[in-house]
Amino acid sequence: MDHAARLPRPDGMTRFLAVLEYDGAPYHGWQLQKDIPTIQGTLENALQEILNTPTRVHGAGRTDAGVHAVGQVAHFDAQWNHAPASLQRACNALLPRSIAVVDLVCAPESFHARHSAREKTYQYLIRNTSDRSPLLDRFTWHVKPALTVERLQAASRPLVGTHDFASFGAATGGTPSTERTVLHVAWCVHQASGCLSFTIRGTGFLRYMVRSLVGTLVLAGLGKLDPAHMTHILAARDRSQAGPTAPPQGLFLRHVHYPAGPCHASQGPGLLQALIADL
Amino acid sequence: MDHAARLPRPDGMTRFLAVLEYDGAPYHGWQLQKDIPTIQGTLENALQEILNTPTRVHGAGRTDAGVHAVGQVAHFDAQWNHAPASLQRACNALLPRSIAVVDLVCAPESFHARHSAREKTYQYLIRNTSDRSPLLDRFTWHVKPALTVERLQAASRPLVGTHDFASFGAATGGTPSTERTVLHVAWCVHQASGCLSFTIRGTGFLRYMVRSLVGTLVLAGLGKLDPAHMTHILAARDRSQAGPTAPPQGLFLRHVHYPAGPCHASQGPGLLQALIADL
Repeated sequence: MDHAARLPRPDGMTRFLAVLEYDGAPYHGWQLQKDIPTIQGTLENALQEILNTPTRVHGAGRTDAGVHAVGQVAHFDAQWNHAPASLQRACNALLPRSIAVVDLVCAPESFHARHSAREKTYQYLIRNTSDRSPLLDRFTWHVKPALTVERLQAASRPLVGTHDFASFGAATGGTPSTERTVLHVAWCVHQASGCLSFTIRGTGFLRYMVRSLVGTLVLAGLGKLDPAHMTHILAARDRSQAGPTAPPQGLFLRHVHYPAGPCHASQGPGLLQALIADL
Repeated sequence: MDHAARLPRPDGMTRFLAVLEYDGAPYHGWQLQKDIPTIQGTLENALQEILNTPTRVHGAGRTDAGVHAVGQVAHFDAQWNHAPASLQRACNALLPRSIAVVDLVCAPESFHARHSAREKTYQYLIRNTSDRSPLLDRFTWHVKPALTVERLQAASRPLVGTHDFASFGAATGGTPSTERTVLHVAWCVHQASGCLSFTIRGTGFLRYMVRSLVGTLVLAGLGKLDPAHMTHILAARDRSQAGPTAPPQGLFLRHVHYPAGPCHASQGPGLLQALIADL
């Protein structure tokens, strides 16, 4: 898609696909709200200033207040006769330090950031140490009591597959169905920083789903919930059966997957990297 | 010092040594200023609330606005008959997320955070990549053009030793002398994140000294300054001969060294760690 010819459109507009990285802390989530700072609103303001006309931005997913992204995808239409790279530079010059357009390419008119998305990957970071860390607590959930990784893994396994996830969140948008397909889950440990990372890939997610999954898995990791009980919680289809919703600052929208191949190259290296202990 | 007996003092006070980690972004530096958020002011407010009396906090170094710390040391006197750990917990419960007391121990009355300090170690982080990163730019200086590490290293070498550093900053406090001793400098590269780290240890530092050193070294790293010229800039004792002052958000007060041995243990692992790319 990066090298797609720019098709002439009757209205002179081009569709653009933007890959975004943002620190969610200063924002009330993705979705536009009047007089409240949101990611979508901040982007639309920047584009309006550059393009001199109101421009609607469509995101692949509506991240909640305080949730971060390293691979959010959005599209918009604009009359722009220069290279996409110069539009990207103009956006980054106007956007606050907490939001960056890390890639911007032309897309076919049929591309829709949300409707064309096939899968999404979220990552959740937990700092499992006794001390607070002002530098890292902005981007992690600080859980002081020791978590058992084997229990976290055991409790996560039943999530893979197509299930009714009503116990873990509510449907959003048009469809009332709470059935979703989880394709992959993984826990990783980073010993030096005391961080645990939960990665989950699926065809779609309910509102608060990843955070309530993490909140429930942590109960299992702490020994307060039998990992085998996850199956029953799923089957109950009752939000009150699951654990609490984990806080937003540990959650990252990591990647949005589209069928057309690698249309957004810069989601790999250079994102969600590191202030390393041994630097 | 951690296990030092608490000596009875006529006034019933105990001297405490606190090791602090903070995100400097929301603060106008360490030093107390009226009606302006500072680290010292925020700590003193928390202690006043706990101890029910105004409490003066003395820091080892006055970090400037926006500068971070992972091993700042401070001392204060307090009438506290419980364990230091419970005072530490009370502080951390009251302090904002951007400041943490990572260690708190009793100290002899002769201990003074600034006067007793023998050496300090600062670390400066540069992100040397083309893309902005909202997650990392809070804690790094983003330098887009490629830096040559060998040139950075060559330009840093002449700094080691006792020199008049007037070209790199102004004296603070009582003494007008601008002579300081640098004991160690090192550059490290973290390929995955595109980060370069500059570590400098010395007996003392002038105001803005580390940042003007980094600003000048970066000129050498970019090929705009001959590394061999650093000796002449030092000899000039003229601030206008050196490069610009690097921005504050890349600078961390990493460690304060005292002669009495390991009196603050928690500065090692668990600080300045990482949101790692491959987590």
